[in-house]
Amino acid sequence: MAEDRVLRVRTLLDSVRAEGRTALTAPEGKVVADAYGIAVPGEELATDVDEAVAYAARFGGPVVMKIVSPDILHKTDAGGVIVGVEGATDVRTAFHHIIDNARAYNADARIAGVQVQELLPEGQEVIVGAVTDPTFGKVVAFGLGGVLVEVLKDVTFRLAPVSADEALSMLDSIRAAEILRGVRGRAAVDRWAIAEQIRRVSQLVADFPEIAEVDLNPVMATAEGAVAADIRVILSEAPAKPRRRYSRDEILISMRRLMQPSSVAVIGASNEPGKIGNSVMRNLIDGGFAGDIHPVNPKADDILGRKAYKSVTDVPGEVDVAVFAIPAKFVASALQEVGSKKIPNAVLIPSGFAETGEHELQEEIVEIAERHGVRLLGPNIYGYYSTWQDLCATFCTPYDVKGGVALTSQSGGIGMAILGFARTTKTGVSAIVGLGNKSDLDEDDLLTWFGEDPHTECIAMHLEDLKDGRAFVEAARATVPKKPVVVLKAGRTAAGAKAAGSHTGALAGDDAVYEDILKQAGVIRAPGLNEMLEYARALPVLPAPKGDNVVIITGAGGSGVLLSDAVTDNGLSLMEIPPDLDEAFRKFIPPFGAAGNPVDITGGEPPSTYEATIRLGLEDPRIHALVLGYWHTIVTPPMVFAELTARVVAEFRERGVEKPVVASLAGDVEVEEACQYLYERGVVAYPYTTEKPVAVLGAKYRWARAAERLGAEGPSARAVVGDGRDVGGRFMR
Amino acid sequence: MAEDRVLRVRTLLDSVRAEGRTALTAPEGKVVADAYGIAVPGEELATDVDEAVAYAARFGGPVVMKIVSPDILHKTDAGGVIVGVEGATDVRTAFHHIIDNARAYNADARIAGVQVQELLPEGQEVIVGAVTDPTFGKVVAFGLGGVLVEVLKDVTFRLAPVSADEALSMLDSIRAAEILRGVRGRAAVDRWAIAEQIRRVSQLVADFPEIAEVDLNPVMATAEGAVAADIRVILSEAPAKPRRRYSRDEILISMRRLMQPSSVAVIGASNEPGKIGNSVMRNLIDGGFAGDIHPVNPKADDILGRKAYKSVTDVPGEVDVAVFAIPAKFVASALQEVGSKKIPNAVLIPSGFAETGEHELQEEIVEIAERHGVRLLGPNIYGYYSTWQDLCATFCTPYDVKGGVALTSQSGGIGMAILGFARTTKTGVSAIVGLGNKSDLDEDDLLTWFGEDPHTECIAMHLEDLKDGRAFVEAARATVPKKPVVVLKAGRTAAGAKAAGSHTGALAGDDAVYEDILKQAGVIRAPGLNEMLEYARALPVLPAPKGDNVVIITGAGGSGVLLSDAVTDNGLSLMEIPPDLDEAFRKFIPPFGAAGNPVDITGGEPPSTYEATIRLGLEDPRIHALVLGYWHTIVTPPMVFAELTARVVAEFRERGVEKPVVASLAGDVEVEEACQYLYERGVVAYPYTTEKPVAVLGAKYRWARAAERLGAEGPSARAVVGDGRDVGGRFMR
Repeated sequence: MAEDRVLRVRTLLDSVRAEGRTALTAPEGKVVADAYGIAVPGEELATDVDEAVAYAARFGGPVVMKIVSPDILHKTDAGGVIVGVEGATDVRTAFHHIIDNARAYNADARIAGVQVQELLPEGQEVIVGAVTDPTFGKVVAFGLGGVLVEVLKDVTFRLAPVSADEALSMLDSIRAAEILRGVRGRAAVDRWAIAEQIRRVSQLVADFPEIAEVDLNPVMATAEGAVAADIRVILSEAPAKPRRRYSRDEILISMRRLMQPSSVAVIGASNEPGKIGNSVMRNLIDGGFAGDIHPVNPKADDILGRKAYKSVTDVPGEVDVAVFAIPAKFVASALQEVGSKKIPNAVLIPSGFAETGEHELQEEIVEIAERHGVRLLGPNIYGYYSTWQDLCATFCTPYDVKGGVALTSQSGGIGMAILGFARTTKTGVSAIVGLGNKSDLDEDDLLTWFGEDPHTECIAMHLEDLKDGRAFVEAARATVPKKPVVVLKAGRTAAGAKAAGSHTGALAGDDAVYEDILKQAGVIRAPGLNEMLEYARALPVLPAPKGDNVVIITGAGGSGVLLSDAVTDNGLSLMEIPPDLDEAFRKFIPPFGAAGNPVDITGGEPPSTYEATIRLGLEDPRIHALVLGYWHTIVTPPMVFAELTARVVAEFRERGVEKPVVASLAGDVEVEEACQYLYERGVVAYPYTTEKPVAVLGAKYRWARAAERLGAEGPSARAVVGDGRDVGGRFMR
Repeated sequence: MAEDRVLRVRTLLDSVRAEGRTALTAPEGKVVADAYGIAVPGEELATDVDEAVAYAARFGGPVVMKIVSPDILHKTDAGGVIVGVEGATDVRTAFHHIIDNARAYNADARIAGVQVQELLPEGQEVIVGAVTDPTFGKVVAFGLGGVLVEVLKDVTFRLAPVSADEALSMLDSIRAAEILRGVRGRAAVDRWAIAEQIRRVSQLVADFPEIAEVDLNPVMATAEGAVAADIRVILSEAPAKPRRRYSRDEILISMRRLMQPSSVAVIGASNEPGKIGNSVMRNLIDGGFAGDIHPVNPKADDILGRKAYKSVTDVPGEVDVAVFAIPAKFVASALQEVGSKKIPNAVLIPSGFAETGEHELQEEIVEIAERHGVRLLGPNIYGYYSTWQDLCATFCTPYDVKGGVALTSQSGGIGMAILGFARTTKTGVSAIVGLGNKSDLDEDDLLTWFGEDPHTECIAMHLEDLKDGRAFVEAARATVPKKPVVVLKAGRTAAGAKAAGSHTGALAGDDAVYEDILKQAGVIRAPGLNEMLEYARALPVLPAPKGDNVVIITGAGGSGVLLSDAVTDNGLSLMEIPPDLDEAFRKFIPPFGAAGNPVDITGGEPPSTYEATIRLGLEDPRIHALVLGYWHTIVTPPMVFAELTARVVAEFRERGVEKPVVASLAGDVEVEEACQYLYERGVVAYPYTTEKPVAVLGAKYRWARAAERLGAEGPSARAVVGDGRDVGGRFMR
């Protein structure tokens, strides 16, 4: 059946191509629709009146009847169209009427017959379509029809093909989703019928890469079904060039040697301060890298106390990484040597390639690398850090705070911002990697590696484009169940996308497509640079929540209101406190304090009130996350609050109870020290903001949802009290 | 004419009230609509067939005809409704048909006649309405009609009454505004006709406070006009209690004595450390207040070396402010004494009033204060700071960095966050004021004062509700042309509003109404606490832009892309660089750098390239604001960039050229010092974020637009080069 339909469409498309056309005619579209079971109105050509009656009877409801003649272009003018004909008698009358009108209009017209077509039912107009995205390839789209939605651009996208469930999820991904469920007493539409139209269109474009676009516009959705008014199919002018792909194992083998090398060669190593080849050597040595460091420089015998080699081919033994610190024009020949030495990784710091318009030079080195099986990082990068190896293969300054976050950036400037932010906030890092022009290695390779790397607990990536959106989604889907992936996609807006174009020569994809498909891949999209950095810093610190119930405990009612705003803004759920829990909280707070949620313990309370309520929040298995609002008072100074909170959280952690706890500290400057103290002890705390702590918790929740860690609330909540998050994790994976 | 219509509606409403009804019938609605010229379909009761023909002829187009009988409720069932009748013959036939059907349906029915009603044209459905908002009073609303808009809640609000221009502006304030201008070849609607419907409804509710709600739903808008299908009018159950109002002069006189006092009494002053009355005394003394400080305490002779008085009535001479540091239960009697001493201001630090459910106690003190003409600040506050007077009338810690920003907060916790933030960022402050329960003095009093205060250049207010939205809007409108007003409205979201309810007992207004009306008042709404603080800190530092043209100059292409995203997000305009200016920029940047906008000078450039391009940006009068993206390199270290930027900006300022310049610094931790250096010299700079500097510039632009400082680009741009921003300002006010 499936083969048969592919064959039918294949034959049709080949004939269209043979005629040099790229657009299918309406009857050709009908053939494609029928082959894929895409519901369009039934239509038949009746050559006599009895046939017309028979076809109309088969369609059941009212029909449209139209003259078919190569000599009559304006059918309506010729009186050749009658709408809404029903029943044998009327069909007969209409048939004769149409033929008579046609003859009266043009006595010489050749008449092929009368087309009898099912009338579209009245219903909710929706749009189903498919396009070929430059980044993600075949993408299926769904939106409401009509002028209003066109203006509001309420459309959602998915990678094609989609499963029936994914197709159904698209109906809930538009802002006006409620309409489809029936509002103001109108019946809900047949959701599965729409989903089926989406699924079938997505399968069609997946089966035929040469189909560039499909449009069902509008699809009339009713309580009984969903029928497309018509189908438009456009073929692509030229198929896209396939990109070289490596297998997962190939990626992991070369990435392991890149990130955990035993031996590094520096091509263009130098004794001269200020030179990049000098900075790289210094950072490798000062960073404490324990493996071999081999300077390569034809003009020196010795660099920073190490023997220098004329060529990388002279270096003894295996080399895992060759770091290039030479001008662009010398890269190709040095890369040949790296290839013949069988070094698997070349880190290309130099600029002067595609980013300055030197596309041929870049193509040349890619060709050399592919020939020798060398993977390229860059060119046009600051290098990379692998902190657990004490490896600082970069011309920037060394970084040594080991931790769980791996950061990558396409731009060098953003890489420097990452470094400064990490240093000032003491963020624990597993790696920082520059990607630059991404002539070869890109985000999907790094994701594949960091997904496996036991030191990495969270991955954050700044990117302006994706060379291969599908490979990225695949890698993200494999990684997200294990650890969160944060993405800052620059060039979101029209102005931003324009700048991206001039910066990297990369075609920035439509942001609406990125938005939906990154979500589909389960990554957490950061709205800006600072958020990316804060999420990256915080996510490895916070344990994963095991359910939706967020409780705010605050000493400042004013903070409670703002924290509630933030909870809603971030799509989190303020727990409805059950009566017994409410009563339990009330025992600790003054009579004029407000239980409920936020739990407002009021401002003048001693440390014991904070402690008792936080304990209760951690103890009760129905609560899954705590948001604390602290108000600086003489009765409970900042460090007293920080100490008691960290102590209670640690005590519960030892008992196996791990819940994410975030805090907003309102107070004089002492709160800054208190926040740092809390952060280092697993409580994500910020001064002078009620938004940041909740945004970070929101990011953790987005990951937990994508990784399907939430939801199995009952068993995990119970398991967790006894045996900690691993048990909960096992239950839920 | 206007008087006549008021009289007609007054008579009608009185009769409705007399009958104990609150909803008007359809014919009563028609009377109101006709009185105010609100276009509804013409309708007349025809008692015979000739009348029917005459009415139909008068209406012109097709009509609807309906039986009118007290004995026929279901008109359609009785065959008593015919739609779309046109022409004398058809009207005659229809009239007889309807009468015959009615008699056949119920032979005994009393028949009053046949209603002849204009048929609504096909058109774009819109909604016009008015409601009584608990905060803002009469508010007029406009939105598109139909199910979709109901789901998407695309509605806009204004204070009633509105002018014709304001009404017209509402058509552009909905997201789907484009629809009304005609899309997909459809004709644009008659915008003035819709605006007229809005204006007339707004006038109606303004004239009759007892009208609680008006609904025109739908209004059919076409290219020729806008007619409401019907009008629904609901009267309020009980009129709102009028609030005591003070005149502008009265407010300024008492506020001047509050903010610039010569003599302050502290009721409940204490020698005992830890007591609020002790902290307040210490802060007044340590803060350096140069006026008289009089401790009042019946049990002490001397407090902190100053003579103490048994009662405030014993204090010699005039007293401007009495600060209360005594428990709630003693406040009333002490306030009596303050009143009899004719002290104009009582600052009520104690809690234990409305916020803890003690509404009667609060009402009692308000009554005492009103009787004596004492203005109350609080109760339930941390006190207040007036830095230029070295006055710290608070139990928190002193603050002494004098500057241009006045901050107020409804909540004590937020007040502490303000203090800590100000201290850590060295924000120059003119005042910090706690408002707490706002039993009397509130935001509009403070706005009125700060608007006049020459030390204050920017006002930032945290609020959870407004006691009198109209007074606030009035004060804001008077202030905004002079200086920016930033508002953080907490309780934005459903969850937030709920928490506000439990905190202050205040009914949080619908956020959609707040959003639109705050915008109408010209205030800058901050999305969160941190933004409020950053805007407050930055706005007095930045000069006002004089036109829309923003140019990004960046050393890091990656930052350029993110800065462009931020520019678009903040509603700013990336200038289209004209060819001559493009050429001028290109002279300074490498051939592979990108001119255009962002101007990408590329990463490896020396200080001279930054300097030359920044100079050009300041020099060219077509450019109105600069966004700088700095990338930390060895060639141009952070402090070198900071020094050259500050120097060039200062040089142009001396020449009278003041443009807002903001900067994002991407680099290692040295960029933090560079940012502080720049900030102190008038360049708003942030490390590790591309969003904040642009958000702050966006806030300045929002103010400049509200204050009508933008737009007169030609003369101001020229004037400015010669004579600085004052000239520009004078040109534009």
